[in-house]
Amino acid sequence: MAYSKVKYEDIKKLCNLVFKRFGFNEKESETITDVLLLSDLYGIESHGIQRLVKYYSEIKGGLININSEIKIVKETPVSAVLDAQAGMGQLVGEKAMNMAIEKAETSGIGMVVVRNSNHYGIAGYYARMAEKKGLLGISMTNSPAVIVPTFGKEAMLGTNPIAISMPAEPYPFLLDMSTSVVTRGKIEVYNKRQEPLPLGLGLNSEGEDTTDPGDILYNVPRKLGGGLLPLGGSKELTGGHKGYGFALAVEMFTAILSGGFTGNYVHLDGSDGSGTCHSFFAVNYGIFGDKKSIEDSFSKYLNELRDSKKAKGAVRIYTHGEKEIEAYNDKMKNGVSMNDITLKEINDICEYFDIQMSDYISKI
Amino acid sequence: MAYSKVKYEDIKKLCNLVFKRFGFNEKESETITDVLLLSDLYGIESHGIQRLVKYYSEIKGGLININSEIKIVKETPVSAVLDAQAGMGQLVGEKAMNMAIEKAETSGIGMVVVRNSNHYGIAGYYARMAEKKGLLGISMTNSPAVIVPTFGKEAMLGTNPIAISMPAEPYPFLLDMSTSVVTRGKIEVYNKRQEPLPLGLGLNSEGEDTTDPGDILYNVPRKLGGGLLPLGGSKELTGGHKGYGFALAVEMFTAILSGGFTGNYVHLDGSDGSGTCHSFFAVNYGIFGDKKSIEDSFSKYLNELRDSKKAKGAVRIYTHGEKEIEAYNDKMKNGVSMNDITLKEINDICEYFDIQMSDYISKI
Repeated sequence: MAYSKVKYEDIKKLCNLVFKRFGFNEKESETITDVLLLSDLYGIESHGIQRLVKYYSEIKGGLININSEIKIVKETPVSAVLDAQAGMGQLVGEKAMNMAIEKAETSGIGMVVVRNSNHYGIAGYYARMAEKKGLLGISMTNSPAVIVPTFGKEAMLGTNPIAISMPAEPYPFLLDMSTSVVTRGKIEVYNKRQEPLPLGLGLNSEGEDTTDPGDILYNVPRKLGGGLLPLGGSKELTGGHKGYGFALAVEMFTAILSGGFTGNYVHLDGSDGSGTCHSFFAVNYGIFGDKKSIEDSFSKYLNELRDSKKAKGAVRIYTHGEKEIEAYNDKMKNGVSMNDITLKEINDICEYFDIQMSDYISKI
Repeated sequence: MAYSKVKYEDIKKLCNLVFKRFGFNEKESETITDVLLLSDLYGIESHGIQRLVKYYSEIKGGLININSEIKIVKETPVSAVLDAQAGMGQLVGEKAMNMAIEKAETSGIGMVVVRNSNHYGIAGYYARMAEKKGLLGISMTNSPAVIVPTFGKEAMLGTNPIAISMPAEPYPFLLDMSTSVVTRGKIEVYNKRQEPLPLGLGLNSEGEDTTDPGDILYNVPRKLGGGLLPLGGSKELTGGHKGYGFALAVEMFTAILSGGFTGNYVHLDGSDGSGTCHSFFAVNYGIFGDKKSIEDSFSKYLNELRDSKKAKGAVRIYTHGEKEIEAYNDKMKNGVSMNDITLKEINDICEYFDIQMSDYISKI
């Protein structure tokens, strides 16, 4: 696939405008754009602006209701339950994490769970909202079932990412990962390249290891069996039951606590909205000690990890978030990579809304 | 290895007595015994009564101080930091989880972190303390460094288990897992059997995949390089950086937040105490909705997972905790399995303290 580079500020302006044409107001459009483009800046193309077309079709199809009001179902000084009422995931996500942050600043800990939402972009965006305020932040979301439980052949759990972030120098800590071995996006890449899938990533409709990425992508949305393997793979010996356990815990923290849909009911055709559930957690670690000392000891440990001895043939040990921050700095300076298919899709949407794409962005 | 079965009540009485002879009072001995034997009842031999000899040598060696007072360093309505002052892990563990439970019952959420502690047995014991009170419970602990970061060859993180438990019918949910592919105990089993290790579990001193379990067991405590692989294995493709991230997050939630030692400093010869750190977390999920409805929807989902379609050749899908509860019921009825080496070690300790082991236990 051919890639072009475009300036961040250009694509941001255009993206904002497109979301306004979808029907969102100025502030809403800015929030959604901010979440989407952080993904592209981090180099996570799958959750970035390439989602624009998909979001528009979900708005047209009724899964996403652009006029929904977020409802506060229940609230305490440390917690809240929000009903997104089929609204855009990024909007309820920002609101929920802001509530968790306020509660953490007032009470020490804040935990907000959300039901009846939609795709909310990268979980790491919300974890870093807390990190930027000098807090420990966690966010999780469920998603349409694609992970198969250990010894099963039916997708029953979402890819269920977990993001954890905390301030550190010179890089914040940012773990942002699905609880499957790889995401659906990675399977799509193998499929586009017509390359066989390495064993241990996914199962066919009989629940057997498969090397055919197209098979998985065809079967899962049609509920024909098979899907992605949880982190740890298909066997207990390699810890597959552990990844399955983490994916299940994410369903518990999102769908079960919020009273929403578990992954096996999310995004079923005919349901009213996608029913995706999220959770947001913020901790003011000042409740445990001097914040600066805690940050310093964390930075020291992360540095010890990066400086520890390398395996034969390896040149660098990363701590989580380092790659994302490096990608961010590079792309802010040198432009955001966009593949030609995505650029074409954006152009089509622009034409539909009578926007001249070339008035906004030009390839660098 | 030959195994015998002994009655739970018999081994409990003897174990209590031995801990009293070590110098613990009646209540302390009961708590430690309760934690240790739950591990045997769950079928997790490595963390059960076979630790008796090791604990005694750690008391004699000064790592464990039986007279230490647990110090409350800092406290808020939702949190506390405890300094175990080199005391027994089970004692500070029980106190810390009880504090987290009280805070959750009063404020909705409780989070207690502990520094300067020792081995505390199975993390699942503490998570279930909360579960038995109708709360969501989490516990984590760090441990002497044995996990190697992705692309490294130096053990820098403990096996760092995470346990999560929540009420459900007919089985509670109990995830209790190390963040390595397998625990050190599993490597010991391969070594005892003189069997080659499957690839993907551990690294040799150069940071290369190894099939030699003895190599890992020799190298790690001597800091010669190598160790266990994080969940997901040695490669980013198989998600090794995810397991590494979870292990790192456990260091953050235990050592960093409590102001204690990270895994690479735990249990170093010459340090005063082992420096192990734990964390305990309880949530009264009544803050999110009707408790009974939440439990019912969780039970329903766990049941759907167990009832979902099986992979070709598989007969059963488990949810986490099911195997432990089945083992518990079996062993309470039919006796606890103890291997001959452990029985011999207990007999030696009994002789040392002038206890006639046969007065207390007989093989079934």
